[in-house]
Amino acid sequence: MQWLYGSAEGAAESIQVYHAMVDYVRSAVADRPHDSVVLASDPGDGPAQFVPCGDKPFAAILDVDETAILNLGYEALLAEGRANRQNLIAYQTSGTDKAAPVPGALYAVKAMRQMGVKVIYSTNRDGIAAAGTAQTLDKLGFGPAVHGDTLFLRGDASSNPEKDGRRETLSQRYCVVAMAGDQMGDFADLFNAKGLNIKTRRSMAAHGWAAKMWGNGWFLLPNPTYGPGLRGTMDEVFPPDKRWTPESMGNTAGK
Amino acid sequence: MQWLYGSAEGAAESIQVYHAMVDYVRSAVADRPHDSVVLASDPGDGPAQFVPCGDKPFAAILDVDETAILNLGYEALLAEGRANRQNLIAYQTSGTDKAAPVPGALYAVKAMRQMGVKVIYSTNRDGIAAAGTAQTLDKLGFGPAVHGDTLFLRGDASSNPEKDGRRETLSQRYCVVAMAGDQMGDFADLFNAKGLNIKTRRSMAAHGWAAKMWGNGWFLLPNPTYGPGLRGTMDEVFPPDKRWTPESMGNTAGK
Repeated sequence: MQWLYGSAEGAAESIQVYHAMVDYVRSAVADRPHDSVVLASDPGDGPAQFVPCGDKPFAAILDVDETAILNLGYEALLAEGRANRQNLIAYQTSGTDKAAPVPGALYAVKAMRQMGVKVIYSTNRDGIAAAGTAQTLDKLGFGPAVHGDTLFLRGDASSNPEKDGRRETLSQRYCVVAMAGDQMGDFADLFNAKGLNIKTRRSMAAHGWAAKMWGNGWFLLPNPTYGPGLRGTMDEVFPPDKRWTPESMGNTAGK
Repeated sequence: MQWLYGSAEGAAESIQVYHAMVDYVRSAVADRPHDSVVLASDPGDGPAQFVPCGDKPFAAILDVDETAILNLGYEALLAEGRANRQNLIAYQTSGTDKAAPVPGALYAVKAMRQMGVKVIYSTNRDGIAAAGTAQTLDKLGFGPAVHGDTLFLRGDASSNPEKDGRRETLSQRYCVVAMAGDQMGDFADLFNAKGLNIKTRRSMAAHGWAAKMWGNGWFLLPNPTYGPGLRGTMDEVFPPDKRWTPESMGNTAGK
């Protein structure tokens, strides 16, 4: 939390991501891409197939929490051990301004709009938070965020409550030139498949077709404070073949 | 640590940074920049002055720890509460291969070398670790790392033991087209000035001349596990004017 919400490093990292996104979108708009950056289906080992752009209008899809806005109000509550489900809903429905733009996000949203790209927010907040989320985005300068037009929440696409459902719907209407989010599910739900082990999940993101997407249509904001990335036993995070024991401790050294 | 060393998100983030770095360096090499990305002096509020490139050969400066390599061996020890100064020195001097390339780093180093850019490692490891660090870099595929040529450690520039000293020396010899690091000190030591408060430090990185550098010559790898970014009281990380209290708790609600 200190790193993400308080540090120079955290701010610099997100500015860097949004600089890259704006540059990328500028190129895409100048030279219309054949495909959206939305997967047409699960490519498995690849190659990946993406939804064709045709002559559809340009759009960029942004996640909300810890992508467009830093939820300082709620996260401080969490840091103090006062957070719970009821408070989260109260926070999300209140239209609060106790949040701040992610550094670089406002610049990117404005720049993309000036290029004629429609900025669409897609969040996994529940539908009950539609008005509050729109209000918060408006207060922080991200508006217009209009539910059903530039703002979509969990369950808004009938086919699938996860984000893949909304991506499918949006990529039928728009040439989606870029997506930004702080979680893998902001790009494709296949990274959140049940039973996927931690090593395989990391490997999927770092090899093959997926590796090519980072900075090339898919823009990941850093969030080391919550989400499916914060998982793993010692052996899952630190592979046994990479363990090191100082000679002074010997191989049987205890703790 | 789970996020940085084990997650898909952590891997994707660093791949994204290195994609951006390679693209940036390719442009710089194609169209020689007037200046290095090394500050000529502390710009204060700006504008910033950078060291001129002249017709010097191209170089890129990379930090080592958590920029080129993930120190799985030592960090696992840290996670287990078994790390100390003596073990750190043993690890750094041992030439260990109990580390892994940061995802994307090997690709970037190879790509930049193919463009004729000299890749130079600059680390704040002590001079005693020169041979061990070179060995580790070689074992992981980052070589050649030759002390005094492509590898520099703390104290290697006589003028100043911090990285500014080495940047000054290197920018006299090279047109430094890009720098990569996981800490602000990998770009300019002014971010680590004594007495700099947390809010000011974040603001310095996120506004004015410095904000423009992220992704434009300065490439920050995410590291939420150690360093000066991990500081701050509740009030420093979560500004008081951004605190939020659920109505159900009232303004005087306790913890």
